[in-house]
Parts: sequence; C-alpha cells; structure tokens
Amino acid sequence: MSEEHVVRMAELKIDPAMLEAYRALLAEEIEASVALEEGVLSLSAVSLKDDPSTIRILEVYASSQAYEAHLKTPHFLKYKSETAGMVVSLTLIEVDPIMMRAKS
Amino acid sequence: MSEEHVVRMAELKIDPAMLEAYRALLAEEIEASVALEEGVLSLSAVSLKDDPSTIRILEVYASSQAYEAHLKTPHFLKYKSETAGMVVSLTLIEVDPIMMRAKS
Repeated sequence: MSEEHVVRMAELKIDPAMLEAYRALLAEEIEASVALEEGVLSLSAVSLKDDPSTIRILEVYASSQAYEAHLKTPHFLKYKSETAGMVVSLTLIEVDPIMMRAKS
Repeated sequence: MSEEHVVRMAELKIDPAMLEAYRALLAEEIEASVALEEGVLSLSAVSLKDDPSTIRILEVYASSQAYEAHLKTPHFLKYKSETAGMVVSLTLIEVDPIMMRAKS
C-alpha cells in the first residue's frame, strides 16, 4: 500500500424491490472500473447475509486524483444515474488501510 | 468469484493502549496467510478514520476447507494468542460476495 492510496468503505441500503437490478448494475460498474481505469486498484462489494439489501463496498484507488477521475467516467455516471432511484441511503466511511493482500 | 468461496467481514474493537502492537501483529498475520496459504485469496484490514481502534477485515477464502485449515496454521495461532488480551470485542458478519475485482 502506498501512503497516497485512497481507501473507502461505502454502506448502502437498497430498495428491496430493486435489489436484483441494483446488484447487476453494481457488478457491471465494478468490472468496468477495474478493467478500464489504471487508478482503480480494487473494488469489493458484498451484501450482508442477514440483510441482503445492505451492501458494503471496499474501494481502493491509487490516489485522490484517480478517485476524482473515476467519478467522471461514463461507466460510473451510468451506474450513478441508473441506480439513483434504487438507493435508500449511502454512508461513506473514511478508513485507513492497515494491510491489504491478495493473490496475484 | 466461485460459489464455493467463503467471504466474511470481521469488526474488532481494540484496546486503544494496545493499538500499535495489535496493528503490527495483524499486518504480519495477513502477509503470512496470503503468502503461505493457497486457499487464502485475500485479506484487507482497515481502521475507521473517526475511531482508529475499530478495525474491519474483509476475508476471502477459496472454500470452507481452506478457512478451517487457516485457523490451524502456526501464524494464525500466534496472532490469536498474542492479540487475545488486546481485543475488546470481535463481531463476525456473514456476507455474500456481489463482485470483487482487483488489479492483478
């Protein structure tokens, strides 16, 4: 992990009636972001087993510039507009990385 | 993501007086687990900016067998015994993956 990395957690509550559609749009956005943007290092989205309409996303960007650039990409803007009516609440939780490791 | 994968989030509250020691032991355990265990696919630990003694860990194992094997490794047992007096609480949150992508 570089000191420059930006790491965030988001917690979202989704309208249960829209959950399947939301999950598909989120999955598409994550695949596009990591594939197409050099500065998006990882995106991990999970739902709580006890409450599947609660979703947590762990986001790792190479820098604050990479994060700002991500917000302007066509795939992010599409996700944002198409899911706007599905998201009941969105809480951003600022975090500091301690250690992050994955199989290459 | 395979259907077989086991994904969990843990939330820990650490004794603030022991936080630096705890972070070092956790970092060491994460590095060893991903380096040495084929079935440990990723481990990501972060602390909340607003409350650094609250730590969240996102864990991805190849299978439930891989997770069970992890619990018996020397590096995990060392971490567990050396941090036992530092952990105020540990909550395991069962989650289902939606999409997880990282740069290779």
